[in-house]
Amino acid sequence: MSKDKFESSDSTRSSRPLRHAQHADFKGPIKLQSGQKLPAVRVVYETYGKPNAQRDNAVLICHALTGDSHVASHNAKDDPGWWEVVIGPGKAIDTDRYFVICPNNLGGCRGTTGPNTLNPATGRPYGANFPAITIADIVETQRMLIDHLGIKKLLAVVGGSLGGMQVLQWAVSHPDRVAAAVPIATAPLVTSQALAFDIIGRNAITQDPAFRGGQYYDETRPNADGTFPSSVNVGGLAIARMIGHITYLSPKSMSQKFGGDRRSPRQIVSKFEKDTSVASYLAHQGDKFVERFDANSYIAMSRAMDAFDLGEGKALQKSLAPSRCRWLVMSFSSDWLFPPEQSLAVVRALLANGQNASYCNVRSDSGHDAFLLKDDLDMHGGLLAGFLAKICNGHGRKEEAEEDAHGQAPDTSIFHGRRVDYDQLERLVVEEVGGQTALDLGCGGGQLLLRLKRRSFKRLLGVEIDQQAVKACIARGIDCIHADLNEGLSIFGDKSFDCVTLSRTLQTVRNVDRVVEDMLRVGRRCVVSFPNFGYKPLREMLYAHGKAPEAPGLLRYKWYNTPNIRFFSITDFQEYCREKGATVHRLVALNTETRREVSGDPNLNADLAIFVISRK
Amino acid sequence: MSKDKFESSDSTRSSRPLRHAQHADFKGPIKLQSGQKLPAVRVVYETYGKPNAQRDNAVLICHALTGDSHVASHNAKDDPGWWEVVIGPGKAIDTDRYFVICPNNLGGCRGTTGPNTLNPATGRPYGANFPAITIADIVETQRMLIDHLGIKKLLAVVGGSLGGMQVLQWAVSHPDRVAAAVPIATAPLVTSQALAFDIIGRNAITQDPAFRGGQYYDETRPNADGTFPSSVNVGGLAIARMIGHITYLSPKSMSQKFGGDRRSPRQIVSKFEKDTSVASYLAHQGDKFVERFDANSYIAMSRAMDAFDLGEGKALQKSLAPSRCRWLVMSFSSDWLFPPEQSLAVVRALLANGQNASYCNVRSDSGHDAFLLKDDLDMHGGLLAGFLAKICNGHGRKEEAEEDAHGQAPDTSIFHGRRVDYDQLERLVVEEVGGQTALDLGCGGGQLLLRLKRRSFKRLLGVEIDQQAVKACIARGIDCIHADLNEGLSIFGDKSFDCVTLSRTLQTVRNVDRVVEDMLRVGRRCVVSFPNFGYKPLREMLYAHGKAPEAPGLLRYKWYNTPNIRFFSITDFQEYCREKGATVHRLVALNTETRREVSGDPNLNADLAIFVISRK
Repeated sequence: MSKDKFESSDSTRSSRPLRHAQHADFKGPIKLQSGQKLPAVRVVYETYGKPNAQRDNAVLICHALTGDSHVASHNAKDDPGWWEVVIGPGKAIDTDRYFVICPNNLGGCRGTTGPNTLNPATGRPYGANFPAITIADIVETQRMLIDHLGIKKLLAVVGGSLGGMQVLQWAVSHPDRVAAAVPIATAPLVTSQALAFDIIGRNAITQDPAFRGGQYYDETRPNADGTFPSSVNVGGLAIARMIGHITYLSPKSMSQKFGGDRRSPRQIVSKFEKDTSVASYLAHQGDKFVERFDANSYIAMSRAMDAFDLGEGKALQKSLAPSRCRWLVMSFSSDWLFPPEQSLAVVRALLANGQNASYCNVRSDSGHDAFLLKDDLDMHGGLLAGFLAKICNGHGRKEEAEEDAHGQAPDTSIFHGRRVDYDQLERLVVEEVGGQTALDLGCGGGQLLLRLKRRSFKRLLGVEIDQQAVKACIARGIDCIHADLNEGLSIFGDKSFDCVTLSRTLQTVRNVDRVVEDMLRVGRRCVVSFPNFGYKPLREMLYAHGKAPEAPGLLRYKWYNTPNIRFFSITDFQEYCREKGATVHRLVALNTETRREVSGDPNLNADLAIFVISRK
Repeated sequence: MSKDKFESSDSTRSSRPLRHAQHADFKGPIKLQSGQKLPAVRVVYETYGKPNAQRDNAVLICHALTGDSHVASHNAKDDPGWWEVVIGPGKAIDTDRYFVICPNNLGGCRGTTGPNTLNPATGRPYGANFPAITIADIVETQRMLIDHLGIKKLLAVVGGSLGGMQVLQWAVSHPDRVAAAVPIATAPLVTSQALAFDIIGRNAITQDPAFRGGQYYDETRPNADGTFPSSVNVGGLAIARMIGHITYLSPKSMSQKFGGDRRSPRQIVSKFEKDTSVASYLAHQGDKFVERFDANSYIAMSRAMDAFDLGEGKALQKSLAPSRCRWLVMSFSSDWLFPPEQSLAVVRALLANGQNASYCNVRSDSGHDAFLLKDDLDMHGGLLAGFLAKICNGHGRKEEAEEDAHGQAPDTSIFHGRRVDYDQLERLVVEEVGGQTALDLGCGGGQLLLRLKRRSFKRLLGVEIDQQAVKACIARGIDCIHADLNEGLSIFGDKSFDCVTLSRTLQTVRNVDRVVEDMLRVGRRCVVSFPNFGYKPLREMLYAHGKAPEAPGLLRYKWYNTPNIRFFSITDFQEYCREKGATVHRLVALNTETRREVSGDPNLNADLAIFVISRK
């Protein structure tokens, strides 16, 4: 068994002193959300990079349940941090460009005021008397730190898991102090399943006799940072950690890690079961965790996580209403602790509020821990890098947008490329539809939306199934939602956009009825383009040769591998609109071979149709 | 909060005496798989219904991790059993018809020899000295019981979860004594994730000081059944049970159960956390379990489960090779403890051995516990009932098969119904292909296969995506695999069937290439029928009217809702075969309006084509 599989995302963490940690002390009393007060608060933190002259390049990193301020190494000799893969010079969160701040959370155990620090009122460690804290309390101490550092507005707040909850809280508690929010693998409230795992972990801790009701510190030997070490091993904390570890991994990643050599455990010293590879891994992780972490902190943090509740549905919408920032919401497809639906719920609420957001459900086998790992860094790091760069550049350099929109050579038939019909689409959207808001379904890399950005449109959003295209949109400063049209557009409210476009996509859609129904519901006007199956040469090909028609461009595929699974003509679509009670405002019929609009018998002479339709 | 949500599938279990339990005592020494010996073994069991004269109607029920012999109530006044929904007069396992036997497992704690029974060698309870047992050891004691009851061959062995492992073991250990095997929600070995949960549960037990190394019995007060009660509460057992409970439920069922009133716990007395609905539920289940179950038994049973290993891939195939029975393998779509892939692995291995099996992945939100619950009883109970009835009836009543195959009135166009082309298909399969084995892809309720059953074919199998159709096949005595053709046919080996049929399905397939490639790989000959898009009236409709062709029958749908997403002609398919290197042995072109075979220009004059193709 390789040593490697014993290394989890935080395998490098230890209780070694945080050599580059600084601290800020705040006099109290500091009132907590519960009404209880702390006489004083110390916040331990680390920083990376430098603030710029305007002090507007600060990125706050919020850590997860068992993290601390050491998010990355400060130099080559330093210990790696818990997000080493993402943060550093030239990395996704580029410390050559951004001023990165990472505090240890209130209630944590690495120096910030928490259960293992001195309670001035008693002269002993707080222990189990440390008051219950909330995510809002954690964020409030972070706000004090940001003030202390002279930062008026954070460029971004970024965090995963429990850290993501802090991001959500920042966005709603301090809307004017956050330019962008990046909640990752998180949720407005934990699922019942996740809650249950937390409860069992806490039960294991509190029922362990060694826990002694939380008063287990060696008060005679405080650490250099003022924290107190445990005088005993609280084995229940190891049980809690073992449960946690399962939930951080995906079933698939566990199979890959342990399936091959199940009966070949690593030889370790532990009182826990160790006769299989999984058992020795869990024993190792449990034992190591007991050495480095504090049981009371674990309870305080996990209770803060479980108490966090921005609501669901309408309540969540209301909770998120105050936010004013740009959003990049990220989930991971194999994360079952904070499943993608929960991130999508945040996006849904933001959209319902008329706020914009980008969302990507990163395809990954790594489960909840994916954001901490290298495996899918190209995607999760890439999304972060592109998003932050655009935020930092304000609304994006003009010339860049121009290039994106016009950078390709014109082609001679729309069936040859994706872009020639954009002139017509753009014209129709601007002249026939107007308005200020547009949603492009199947937006690709955002080409059409970039064109509209240069026109009168203020609110632009794309929907795209391909994650690479989502990343491209975000890097271009175009908000994009990663979703499959076939699963419906319930994330968008009735008449929430002046214009909804569906460009050359309808013929690939499995669930045509649902997509068209949703489109008519969401848009005041809808602009739909599709290849016309009634086009004369296509009819003739079937008629004369008795073969499924093929044509260059969109119809270049064979019958058995074409993405085009719906064949219909202009006449078919007109009938369909009648059936659906949709009004046809305009039909632009194009012959892309002659590059002309068709006037006579469009169903025979046009190879591409663009409809403007709507329904009240 | 309703009382209801506290009731789990075994909520009625208690440590009350098993009033209808019988027992059989076997003198030792009885050798275990480990080489260790037990001086004697008692097996406690319950029976329901009566053996018939031939004693060939016995169904053995194998219980899961924490079950016992009380599988159902014996009368209206009796306590409900753990599988009350499935077993009883007129139920899926009909005790008016079958003689049902359910033993308490070796190593259990309800009277069968186990850790809480007297060790004759020491005069004290075995406790932690109870030797490690395996699934094979459990099955061996069941075999002794079956001998004792004078049953030569079991009609069926049925069990879920750990019980399903016993079913697998029976089939391979005693191939001549099992007519049918029904492993439910089980696996040839636990996943790494499931193993990890078991390990943590055992760690919680063994690290609890109250466990005292397993010697915690009150030896002064044996129960009436000879078992010893615990003298203390082993809290770690409650932790193990809480973990178990999460894994038995699906995330969705947990949300439904606890999402609505999370902050409204039931008021209970417990030392465990109880301030949310989930917490109070877990505390209740944990506390109750400690009262009724034995910690050493839990360890013994879960270790037997974790040690069970019939292998994967080729090794599994070899393990299952000795079996001679009929198989119904069942999984549940939301079961993440024993995920459907693991049941499919069993099916795959059986098929690779040339053994037949039926398989259904029952659609369910209830997770692993689904087989114990009413929610999806129509499907899981229905599958069981139909399967057992056919086994019991031998190969099925002839007249029934006749009726199924011919029961419908002939229709005048094949586009109107499913069956008229079966005459041609049957003729082609029998006369042109011959052989003894046939696989029907997209077999529906098994109509074509029933026809072939009356001919020379010995091995018949269907593949079907609709679970109701799968159930119908099984009730007709036709083996059927529940699967989506689009996901490939890797479960079938190269040239493993003389004939593979794909009747009027290809035009609905997303992944044509994969399906056809697989079909050519699996079948020595393949018979494929499809509607011919080159049929003259269809060509003319598009040509003259410029509309997507519609026709009665198969092509009766609109362009936007048709299941037919591939349009191709006889000529297209011929070209495709050439490209794929497939030999066309025969084309039967039909005009189903005139009910005649077409001789001249089939691509113009036929509305349905049947090809016989193959590839070396």
